[in-house]
Amino acid sequence: MTRVYLDHNATSPLRHDARAAMIAAMDVCGNPSSVHAEGRAAKAVVERARAQIEAAFGADGADIVFTSGSTEGAALALMGRDLHGSALEHDAVRAWIKEDLTVDAQGRVAVLDPQISCLQLANSETGVIQDLPEGLAVTDATQAFGKLPVAFNWMGATMALISAHKLGGPKGVGAVVLKRGTDLAAQIRGGGQEMGRRSGTENVIGIAGFGAAAEAAAKDLDNGVWDRVAEIRNILEKAVAAQCPGTIFIGNEARRLPNTSCFATPGWKGETQVMQMDLAGFAISAGSACSSGKVRASAVLTAMGFDEKTAQGAIRVSLGADTTETDVLRFAETWCAKQKKHRARSA
Amino acid sequence: MTRVYLDHNATSPLRHDARAAMIAAMDVCGNPSSVHAEGRAAKAVVERARAQIEAAFGADGADIVFTSGSTEGAALALMGRDLHGSALEHDAVRAWIKEDLTVDAQGRVAVLDPQISCLQLANSETGVIQDLPEGLAVTDATQAFGKLPVAFNWMGATMALISAHKLGGPKGVGAVVLKRGTDLAAQIRGGGQEMGRRSGTENVIGIAGFGAAAEAAAKDLDNGVWDRVAEIRNILEKAVAAQCPGTIFIGNEARRLPNTSCFATPGWKGETQVMQMDLAGFAISAGSACSSGKVRASAVLTAMGFDEKTAQGAIRVSLGADTTETDVLRFAETWCAKQKKHRARSA
Repeated sequence: MTRVYLDHNATSPLRHDARAAMIAAMDVCGNPSSVHAEGRAAKAVVERARAQIEAAFGADGADIVFTSGSTEGAALALMGRDLHGSALEHDAVRAWIKEDLTVDAQGRVAVLDPQISCLQLANSETGVIQDLPEGLAVTDATQAFGKLPVAFNWMGATMALISAHKLGGPKGVGAVVLKRGTDLAAQIRGGGQEMGRRSGTENVIGIAGFGAAAEAAAKDLDNGVWDRVAEIRNILEKAVAAQCPGTIFIGNEARRLPNTSCFATPGWKGETQVMQMDLAGFAISAGSACSSGKVRASAVLTAMGFDEKTAQGAIRVSLGADTTETDVLRFAETWCAKQKKHRARSA
Repeated sequence: MTRVYLDHNATSPLRHDARAAMIAAMDVCGNPSSVHAEGRAAKAVVERARAQIEAAFGADGADIVFTSGSTEGAALALMGRDLHGSALEHDAVRAWIKEDLTVDAQGRVAVLDPQISCLQLANSETGVIQDLPEGLAVTDATQAFGKLPVAFNWMGATMALISAHKLGGPKGVGAVVLKRGTDLAAQIRGGGQEMGRRSGTENVIGIAGFGAAAEAAAKDLDNGVWDRVAEIRNILEKAVAAQCPGTIFIGNEARRLPNTSCFATPGWKGETQVMQMDLAGFAISAGSACSSGKVRASAVLTAMGFDEKTAQGAIRVSLGADTTETDVLRFAETWCAKQKKHRARSA
């Protein structure tokens, strides 16, 4: 039996277009900072990707500063600024914010002063989408970019964090996108690359993959690929609801990412579910990937008001463009059988 | 006429082994932080590379913290520590040090107190190698690793910076290597990857390439590849000295990297030489790649006591394992003809 990968929010398989762009970039040997022909060729690869991302992210005229991913991006955009935010944010964002914004039961955040606040566009665990207020300082668009039709220039945010590996690009490359003219002091200093905002020889191969993945992701969105994914996600949830009464669906009354489903069985630890389903051939997660090793209640669910037993009993199932109806029905059947066994044991 | 790439210290072409490892890693879709089979497979790629680098860098039992390259590594190892260093260091290091150590005419640095100092192992512009004092806080081994037989455990330094793209790995990945138990506070925070010292989803494909490149580079060293490169570099210098009397060779009385030659023609700007040689089919550089865009005297040469006219008139020619005698003799002939023209014009 082939395995079924339902953890696309943790990371997504490399897209064909990204792979091809990366392999092509492997033949470009120069350093983008070098002025000779080999250097200019490497620079052209980076600038082509920048243009692709600018187009795919609706960021005409904005600055795109390449980073090693959204975790570095969060440090670059947020360190020392003490912005307000909520416990829904990713740990990489929570490291730098005042965590004082409140969250309702459907996972929506109340922002008081946008200009000194940070708000994610979509949550990685629940998929819940926020309405970004005009003038927002920073949005973490990592999980949304590529799955939702978004345009930086219409978002109302001054800066956004994006990452390649959430949309079919390679891990280890991302960007901070910012309105032209916005101050952004470099933390990684030296050669003055990225207009002095982020030094270091560019990850040319990774950046080429990011650009190609962004372009392909935008095409998929245009072609309605994610509408189909949403239908399959809904089929999954209906099957689970029908076969496993009493399962708690989280955030499903809010606007959500098309591919994400989060549901809880109080008293059945998410980590245990992940391991049992892994043995049965399904890759899912409990909480965000970074926290996967740690057994603790999801901060996201706790912030939404769920008790610890429910928050500890949640899993996230996140679909990709190639996930089929058969995949999710097999998942539902297998998972529900295990839930029944769990309930029988703990009855 | 095919081009001749003589700028390996700026960046080196991707090795066959690195390319193969990267392409293989493209099929590994998981996030190394995920506990399921796909996650564990990705983690295994990262850990295999860590072991390869540990072996190639003679760092058994040391900690290897992956970064996006030596520029980030320098920030991680040096920020906030105010270590003493010299003007020979790369700009990424100079951003964080007290620049008060003196340099002699052959490019050797006098370290007063190793425990609070930072010293490069080899200079990128001249190739000059430093004797590292026992107990040194940090060494930048970026340019040396892969070209010299070095072992971290015998170096006497507590931390070392290394980078993949200087030894045939991809750009955008490097590491801080440190004696186990050394304090290193994370700057990029969040998911707690790399033992809490550097958060962010790992650059799995790039790290796979780094590991394979390090292993291949160590084999090349064992097989005497760089002794052959040194011979060709010496042929180059003899040809230049014979055909272009009055050329000033820099650092050539010190112990140097086998592949690096730095020589100056006072009054003939390095940038001009780079452009003229580029048009003639040769890639070389004036100063380090990061500074290539800027026309200014090399800080390295100025620190060694050369006057501005000489420092501005220097170029660096850096060979690779596949550079041939024919390549360097063609270079010498072409360059010397241009030098003669320059001298005739300015006479």
